[in-house]
Amino acid sequence: MNADPREHLTAEERQHWLSVAVRLADVCADAISNTAGQFEVEAKADASLVTSADIAAEEAFREVIAAEFPSHGVLGEEKGLTNPDGDFRWIVDPIDGTAEFARGMPTYGTIIGLWLAGRPLLGVIDHQGLGWRLAGGYGLGLNRNGIPVGCEDQTVGGETVGEVRIGLPSRAGFTRRGDQGHVFDAVNRAYPECRTFHTCFSHSCALVGALDAAVEWAVPIWDLGALEALCEAAGAAYHCVQRAPHPLDPALELYSVVFGRPAIADELAAVVARSLDSGSP
Amino acid sequence: MNADPREHLTAEERQHWLSVAVRLADVCADAISNTAGQFEVEAKADASLVTSADIAAEEAFREVIAAEFPSHGVLGEEKGLTNPDGDFRWIVDPIDGTAEFARGMPTYGTIIGLWLAGRPLLGVIDHQGLGWRLAGGYGLGLNRNGIPVGCEDQTVGGETVGEVRIGLPSRAGFTRRGDQGHVFDAVNRAYPECRTFHTCFSHSCALVGALDAAVEWAVPIWDLGALEALCEAAGAAYHCVQRAPHPLDPALELYSVVFGRPAIADELAAVVARSLDSGSP
Repeated sequence: MNADPREHLTAEERQHWLSVAVRLADVCADAISNTAGQFEVEAKADASLVTSADIAAEEAFREVIAAEFPSHGVLGEEKGLTNPDGDFRWIVDPIDGTAEFARGMPTYGTIIGLWLAGRPLLGVIDHQGLGWRLAGGYGLGLNRNGIPVGCEDQTVGGETVGEVRIGLPSRAGFTRRGDQGHVFDAVNRAYPECRTFHTCFSHSCALVGALDAAVEWAVPIWDLGALEALCEAAGAAYHCVQRAPHPLDPALELYSVVFGRPAIADELAAVVARSLDSGSP
Repeated sequence: MNADPREHLTAEERQHWLSVAVRLADVCADAISNTAGQFEVEAKADASLVTSADIAAEEAFREVIAAEFPSHGVLGEEKGLTNPDGDFRWIVDPIDGTAEFARGMPTYGTIIGLWLAGRPLLGVIDHQGLGWRLAGGYGLGLNRNGIPVGCEDQTVGGETVGEVRIGLPSRAGFTRRGDQGHVFDAVNRAYPECRTFHTCFSHSCALVGALDAAVEWAVPIWDLGALEALCEAAGAAYHCVQRAPHPLDPALELYSVVFGRPAIADELAAVVARSLDSGSP
């Protein structure tokens, strides 16, 4: 008996589901590009942005699942959870980095994850504006545009290139849903070559080793739909360092995670934990 | 008599020089792509990185100037100043963001500026990895890949999209050549949606309005070869807030500047100035 439900799938089955996820990324990309820059921008209740392109992409995604896999659950940023009891659950953020998208920054992306009985099975992060599509999963490795990659790939002889680089959300990410700006400050002091990137760009850069490790702070699960599966596939560490209810919706949990090259991510997680323990400076 | 030497050129002459600058960007891009990812990385005396691609691109650039415009000065990051008395001076950073380039981040770029009698005439920032080429100059406006753009372009009805976004160098940029980390801290507190980007990516994002404004800190002139001319062309503000000799080379000046959408850049410059006045917290 194996306790990991992912072991119950054959390699062929896992590969099949990854090809479905890639097809769903195409569906989202088409819906987004069909807006051709002509989209409406609105602020949501939590002050984050949504555009008509986000909505169109999530609707197109849900139509495919409803037609082909009606028993599967879907949790999407814009339209909530359907089929909560399905063994398979798709998690989708149709445009992660909506403000980047609306401002013409090429770093936004679509995040798609497939979970099986609560375990992360596979994921796709598709940066249409960069031409980067990361795809991978349990027992499938990680590839970018079909070429195998991993979190050691931008090293020279196994050493990091130049100074250690850490990806972080903006300071607002630490203060918007709590008073944890001191964690942002502590990480910037410990690692002076931090970069402040939006969610999925930080994920992708750490997964291919362009960043050594990264922090994600107080985000809902749809921002993390692909990350844990892709970290496992890339040989990256993944640590959840904090779980807390959302201040506006106690039914929604917020996660803070540290991930990246294992030795550096472990050290970074310790810096974050010390800062959390010490409280606001 | 007009005191601005740029007025002595006709519009056709300025356009001609911009087309030369664009051709030089092609020359650098070809030299970089010819390395096809096979380049050597070394640390320089100031701990910044240089690759064989940087050197190849600057040499190719200098060959064109020497053959076609032998009276022109050239100041390059890798090979210093030639023809210091030339009225025309080209300033080139063949790969700005060498560490990004070496790590496979697509945000690096080539910076080319042409100065006339000490005044910025025109500039090109070419992000080969993003497919973004910004070009513009005095009386020529700014374009990206041939399409006119300006620092108001990512606004909706003249309003910024979502929260104000400021681009900043990493905290190391404020501490490497002095003890000014408190300026980094102050800007992050005043503008919680800061992004930490490398030099030329920050320049380009502010020039097209994807950032509202940005700070560049204690950098040599080759990092700023294109910026002032492009700001003028884009209708952006450009403020030099600090000049100081380089700690390792007193003959080399370091510049700190604030630029972007005029109202926001003016306010940001005031935040920076107050932080400088107050000293380290």
